[in-house]
Amino acid sequence: MSWYFENGKESDVVVSTRIRFARNIKGLKFESKMSQKDEEELLNKFKNAKFDGLKLCKLSDIDDITKMSLVERHILSKDILQKKNAAFLLNDDESVCVMINEEDHVRIQVVKPGLDFENAYKVATKVDEDISNLVEYAYNDKYGYLTTCPTNLGTGLRVSVMLHLPALRLTGRIQRILDVINKVNVTVRGVYGENSDAIGDMYQVSNKVSLGVSEQEIINNIKKITDTLIKNERTAREILKKRGIAFEDKVSRMYGTLLYAKKMDYNECAKLISIVKLGVDMGIIKDLSSEKVNKIRTLAKVSNLQKYYKTKLDENERDIKRAELIKEILK
Amino acid sequence: MSWYFENGKESDVVVSTRIRFARNIKGLKFESKMSQKDEEELLNKFKNAKFDGLKLCKLSDIDDITKMSLVERHILSKDILQKKNAAFLLNDDESVCVMINEEDHVRIQVVKPGLDFENAYKVATKVDEDISNLVEYAYNDKYGYLTTCPTNLGTGLRVSVMLHLPALRLTGRIQRILDVINKVNVTVRGVYGENSDAIGDMYQVSNKVSLGVSEQEIINNIKKITDTLIKNERTAREILKKRGIAFEDKVSRMYGTLLYAKKMDYNECAKLISIVKLGVDMGIIKDLSSEKVNKIRTLAKVSNLQKYYKTKLDENERDIKRAELIKEILK
Repeated sequence: MSWYFENGKESDVVVSTRIRFARNIKGLKFESKMSQKDEEELLNKFKNAKFDGLKLCKLSDIDDITKMSLVERHILSKDILQKKNAAFLLNDDESVCVMINEEDHVRIQVVKPGLDFENAYKVATKVDEDISNLVEYAYNDKYGYLTTCPTNLGTGLRVSVMLHLPALRLTGRIQRILDVINKVNVTVRGVYGENSDAIGDMYQVSNKVSLGVSEQEIINNIKKITDTLIKNERTAREILKKRGIAFEDKVSRMYGTLLYAKKMDYNECAKLISIVKLGVDMGIIKDLSSEKVNKIRTLAKVSNLQKYYKTKLDENERDIKRAELIKEILK
Repeated sequence: MSWYFENGKESDVVVSTRIRFARNIKGLKFESKMSQKDEEELLNKFKNAKFDGLKLCKLSDIDDITKMSLVERHILSKDILQKKNAAFLLNDDESVCVMINEEDHVRIQVVKPGLDFENAYKVATKVDEDISNLVEYAYNDKYGYLTTCPTNLGTGLRVSVMLHLPALRLTGRIQRILDVINKVNVTVRGVYGENSDAIGDMYQVSNKVSLGVSEQEIINNIKKITDTLIKNERTAREILKKRGIAFEDKVSRMYGTLLYAKKMDYNECAKLISIVKLGVDMGIIKDLSSEKVNKIRTLAKVSNLQKYYKTKLDENERDIKRAELIKEILK
């Protein structure tokens, strides 16, 4: 089963924990200066290598819907889609992905459901070691791992946690908390865009700097901020609980709409799913599992939906198929 | 089973057919001029009489919620609640009611589900004959049956049909049609008040005049107008059908809200039930029977609800209990 359908620790608030290492190969130009030949050379190093459970896939071998659907599942970055010779290694549950020829030569990322720094870090480190046996990383005693963008220098580590914070929004507390946290050495932002509202009340916490701090310090810092956000979100949920039936009514009606609509755009779906997930986690909705909510949350996205139905759909068709998919999952 | 839970002919549009006779007793003053003693004397005439299947009930013997709930079911008029010595005869399915000491000495009314002039008239005439064997009616060759209000003179007959016309509203045609029909010798109005909007898209068609026309002419005229409205409503439904999934989506979402709300005021309930009934009649909602819709339509009303739960409820409690009742009926 794909990792994003599963639940992990603290998954009433934490969707996933992600570890990413940015790595470059010694003796090769940085991506921005690479010729096509250089890119092909890098790719060739991975072509015949065997990594436990990982399969190589060239971007040029897959269709547009599959590509966009990988982006929607946060497996590939949007940037890599522009690259001609890009490829990626992926495991079965899609929790481990190594992008090749993205902004850096190699980007290793490991995601785990719920709050799970330990396992995400353990797996990412193992993949990092495996790759370092294949190629020699560009590394320097002063700057650590060398990267295309200076913000990734040092450890090359980005730790990020995806949080579902609907109660902080519903109680009008989200902006104040984000403002405070963004003053620390940490970025918190809505899942789509740095300025836009978070779709589905999803927020990502990640470290700003990876140089001059140890990997463990980065993880501990994100862990501390995450714990604070979890605590605040849960307090906000207690406040909502005190609203009693008025709040239960709101949640339950949204569940009814999700179940009975015959067409639905993605934005509405994300809004409803956010509150329905909250309802499940608060014990208001009792006949629905988190796994089903996770499934809708992922598969209802524009490209995932088309991938699921194995066909290209226009906007109107998508809205109808999305409603069908929701019914299919929820029934 | 109470008549208003059942379906009759053309009940996709016609809720009920009602026949009412206004009658007064020879030698007794009209209601407006009666002393308490006169009223008691009239009442005594009915106390020991036996009418097939009808039971006598004095208004002073029943509580306020029961009284208001009888008004909500259109069994009693609002006016009769003010009368001290008023009483009524009622049969088991509540389709036959004789009010005593209302605006006239005796008002006989018979209701049938759906379009059914024939049976409503047959039963009303039979009750009229039975009562005429007990008391002598005030009748005059020139004016026919004498009544308190001159508009009821002559036959004393009011024929009315309750229609559900949601598609005429949704297609923006209702006002034009009502304007045309109101120019004829017929009144069409929303179920609550002459000027206010019709709650739940319910409209009542009834004759304006009962003098100088025969009973059959009155019935035929109402029948003709009713047929026209049925035809127009069905045409409007065809137009809605052509809107396809966009319209089905609207209907289905309202059904979902009705099913999943945890509190609901009567106005919202009436609006939703109107569209859900339309959805059932148009074949959009397939897992719901008209009978269940009829049940909600009646029992969700303010006093019927309290009568059903056998307890006095404040507004907030009613809204919660109404949602529970809907779930109970729909599950």
